[in-house]
Amino acid sequence: MIHLTGNQDLITAFVDSIDTFLFDCDGVIWHADVPVDNVIKVLSQLRTMGKRILFVSNNSTKSRRQYLKKFNQLNIEAYTNEIFGSAYAAAYYIKNTLQFPSDKKVYVCGMEGIQEELDSEGIKHCGASDDDENLHNLNEMSTIKDDPGVGAVLFGFDLNINYKKLAKAFTYLYSNKDCHFLATNSDLTFPAGGTVYPGTGALLAALSAPLERKPLILGKPEATMMEVIVDKYHLNRERTCMVGDRLDTDILFGQQGGLKTLLVLTGVTPSVGLEKQSIKAEYVIDSLGNLFK
Amino acid sequence: MIHLTGNQDLITAFVDSIDTFLFDCDGVIWHADVPVDNVIKVLSQLRTMGKRILFVSNNSTKSRRQYLKKFNQLNIEAYTNEIFGSAYAAAYYIKNTLQFPSDKKVYVCGMEGIQEELDSEGIKHCGASDDDENLHNLNEMSTIKDDPGVGAVLFGFDLNINYKKLAKAFTYLYSNKDCHFLATNSDLTFPAGGTVYPGTGALLAALSAPLERKPLILGKPEATMMEVIVDKYHLNRERTCMVGDRLDTDILFGQQGGLKTLLVLTGVTPSVGLEKQSIKAEYVIDSLGNLFK
Repeated sequence: MIHLTGNQDLITAFVDSIDTFLFDCDGVIWHADVPVDNVIKVLSQLRTMGKRILFVSNNSTKSRRQYLKKFNQLNIEAYTNEIFGSAYAAAYYIKNTLQFPSDKKVYVCGMEGIQEELDSEGIKHCGASDDDENLHNLNEMSTIKDDPGVGAVLFGFDLNINYKKLAKAFTYLYSNKDCHFLATNSDLTFPAGGTVYPGTGALLAALSAPLERKPLILGKPEATMMEVIVDKYHLNRERTCMVGDRLDTDILFGQQGGLKTLLVLTGVTPSVGLEKQSIKAEYVIDSLGNLFK
Repeated sequence: MIHLTGNQDLITAFVDSIDTFLFDCDGVIWHADVPVDNVIKVLSQLRTMGKRILFVSNNSTKSRRQYLKKFNQLNIEAYTNEIFGSAYAAAYYIKNTLQFPSDKKVYVCGMEGIQEELDSEGIKHCGASDDDENLHNLNEMSTIKDDPGVGAVLFGFDLNINYKKLAKAFTYLYSNKDCHFLATNSDLTFPAGGTVYPGTGALLAALSAPLERKPLILGKPEATMMEVIVDKYHLNRERTCMVGDRLDTDILFGQQGGLKTLLVLTGVTPSVGLEKQSIKAEYVIDSLGNLFK
């Protein structure tokens, strides 16, 4: 691990070796609705130096458009084609990798961000907010039947998850072995307000536990997301760096994808005990805001 | 395996060896809302012979009172003190085994049956139908906080499971290692209308996956339910028989509890391949209705 904090010579050599920076957002660029100190200037400086910037997030609740709105609100320069959330990664994968048939639809457990990204790629879908109203009683269970028109189930974080959605998704996957089983990410928890709450991976367990199938995970640290990003942006992996605050998603994702990795200490990873962690970043800095003075 | 079907001598010897019969309900006594052929007469005959009858079900959606209503509707003789559903098992365990403090409450993911059984045992509770209205947006997440007054989380089947309930149950268990984690049963699926749907164990996975804790399961085939039944009814295990249609719940439950076991073929277990199953019942009959002519 190379500690960059305060060592301008090392920082210069590191920055010179990179053409493209992949940034995780929460804990790196911002905390909830507040930008990390000096990060706006650092990003601006990287742009001035001709570096390519991408924002890579496992949060599937937002579309690229919704992310852009957030960047704008926080006065952080960003563009739609620089934003790569797991909702978009899923839509891109379904369209370009799966080459999803136009006569099939995707059943979605998830929120508006996923629906919007599927729309943007011209993929038919159902479920999500259409099924926010739950079954009214146990007898209505029998209204849930197999639908051969459903060619994939896509599972993302859904604040409005309910039994109807789980039972529909289960039925499509249980009755049709050819139906693709995809998930935007598998984070068991997500941090908020100083604690953690159940994440996509927790809700997903309710669907994968009764099935004898596991989903293909699109988000970090899985290889599929890296393949999608490399496919879309034609990255030179040796001159690309993944910057993140989580060892088991961001840093592992970069390492397994053959990228350089930079850990920041403004998020979930504490500075003490870094040497004892099984996953070690190539570079570490206390804050992305301290990359340049 | 001793096949009883049509062999009246074997049946007589079997019945003579048993004082108490524990019956699973769905697939044994009835199919949904229709009694299995001739079962009403068989139960009546067993009563005439002085046998004790108990009904033992993993279905946690019904209280004993609600079960009794169903027995009455189907014209099957039954009494409240013969009915042992997993909702009641949980309430009995919390009161008598845990000796739950009167100043603590149980947070419930589940339906009216559980609430009613907790009330019947005088146990304070919250959640369940009180939390059927979900969080309205992601910002409301921060309203979910630890509550040291919650001394146990009890998880059962809940048609109205939602994110609020999962996040509350998670928070109580995550923040307080002394909070008991209980579940009425762990069936991953339940059969209905010729197919299966996600069961209690599926929904429960959304809670146990992000926790580094596993729940204590009250239902079949777990030992706790047997201990509760033996404690309440003072059974002589050698002269008690568990009658059921599922090998991995009913029959395993009886075997692990040291009871005799009778498999019926009117439920989920097909008659072909019985000899190849790893779990083998001591006795088998095509239908409980054929125990007596």
